[in-house]
Amino acid sequence: MLVNGEYKDTIAIMDRGFQYGDGLFETIEVRQNTPIFLEQHLQRLSNDSRRIHLPMLDLELLRSEIKQLCQNSGNAVLKIIITRGSGGRGYRQPDDIQPTRILSLYPFPDYPQNYYSDGIVARICDTRLGLNPILAGIKHLNRVEQVMARAEWNEATIQEGIMLDINRHVIEGTMTNVFYVKKKALYTSPLKDCGIAGIIRSWIMESQIRLLFPIFEQDFFIDDLFGADEIFVCNSVIGIWGIRKLEKHRYTVGKITKQLQLALENEKQKQVALCN
Amino acid sequence: MLVNGEYKDTIAIMDRGFQYGDGLFETIEVRQNTPIFLEQHLQRLSNDSRRIHLPMLDLELLRSEIKQLCQNSGNAVLKIIITRGSGGRGYRQPDDIQPTRILSLYPFPDYPQNYYSDGIVARICDTRLGLNPILAGIKHLNRVEQVMARAEWNEATIQEGIMLDINRHVIEGTMTNVFYVKKKALYTSPLKDCGIAGIIRSWIMESQIRLLFPIFEQDFFIDDLFGADEIFVCNSVIGIWGIRKLEKHRYTVGKITKQLQLALENEKQKQVALCN
Repeated sequence: MLVNGEYKDTIAIMDRGFQYGDGLFETIEVRQNTPIFLEQHLQRLSNDSRRIHLPMLDLELLRSEIKQLCQNSGNAVLKIIITRGSGGRGYRQPDDIQPTRILSLYPFPDYPQNYYSDGIVARICDTRLGLNPILAGIKHLNRVEQVMARAEWNEATIQEGIMLDINRHVIEGTMTNVFYVKKKALYTSPLKDCGIAGIIRSWIMESQIRLLFPIFEQDFFIDDLFGADEIFVCNSVIGIWGIRKLEKHRYTVGKITKQLQLALENEKQKQVALCN
Repeated sequence: MLVNGEYKDTIAIMDRGFQYGDGLFETIEVRQNTPIFLEQHLQRLSNDSRRIHLPMLDLELLRSEIKQLCQNSGNAVLKIIITRGSGGRGYRQPDDIQPTRILSLYPFPDYPQNYYSDGIVARICDTRLGLNPILAGIKHLNRVEQVMARAEWNEATIQEGIMLDINRHVIEGTMTNVFYVKKKALYTSPLKDCGIAGIIRSWIMESQIRLLFPIFEQDFFIDDLFGADEIFVCNSVIGIWGIRKLEKHRYTVGKITKQLQLALENEKQKQVALCN
């Protein structure tokens, strides 16, 4: 792990990332030493930094450290954490913010291939997402809700939990964004009051698929999922997984899900080829 | 600082307290080596641990470390942080949770005496508290909302910001609970959807004052504060401060506020005397 450019695996207890969860993170797939969608991740990190009033990121420095860390990583997961550093009095931030920058590499998870090809089993979580427009979409370090939701089940046969907000709108998975397909249109939560605006979600919204099938960001409920033709979840590490079973309802990994999986795989291979 | 019984000032980057804000904290006044309301703080820490599914705390161990740390501290602030430790896969907690326990001492803040005697100036924050009943009341490490609210002002002349939830109910200060007095009755937020259930707030609710003046936990709005006879904020470090100015409205530190300040001061002196 690289902490402000130095190899170490600890952080000051006084760091506001630890004291208050006062920071942001990114989780990035690294394939054959190439961080996938790197510029999109850095762009989100910049945007989120602005939203929570962190100083402007030194993207050149970040890119160079990422390159250093990933040059021999093969397939891995790169996590970037940016915090507001130490200092300040209680919640009040210091006048001179010196952010802490942490890059760490993890082994790429060994998900079974059939999650991708046959789909996964998901459940509906009881833990709800709180509503807060000023923080909605931001990938900040306050993730107790996700921890509580993920603690609801232990069965290895269930791969993801779907979370609602307190108005019973379906928002996202504990670690993914959620889309469903109904009558050749795609739907996903607008994430205006809660949730994380994922990079793969954004890529889907802007992908060629939208020329063939309309994509709507609109509030929806569990019953819309139960009655869907296809459901899939996505994030930067898993890519896109169809849902084959949600509570008692069964689905197949449908045509649109497969088309998106293929397009995403092509995009990743293109990025790897460009960098090698 | 004591981390799991060892003196150090760093924490593993992998600690879930840092990765997700997956933990709890307590902030305790230490007066003449005596942690004030210690049993109440430990009780809340135990209750909150149960609510977020942390293993049962070893209170004997905690008490002994607190005693060790505070034996020559004089007046100070003791902060306890308990996290879910390291491990697990993403948000999923490890099967065998080994919590991290951090005790740290800080100098007691040098607040001017007139904050206590004449009251403070407060503002209304734009940053709202998100609603989440399962986390309401818990003093967990996810505090980005408070950081955002505290970042709204820089004026040294303003001591506290009052936060509303997204339904415009008044909930608390950025670092305090809020009460107001109207026609010889006290009112405070029920904290059922958000906010932190403070130790001084609880002490007030159970104090003798309730035999003289009824205390209501009920939703209220800014206009109720603006039209109040007295307003005060409280926490374990500041004790009780009257508000003398809130936006354009002026108040005096009234009879009930002063009575509570006196009763709280007596209680603290009693606790110090008992332990020395």
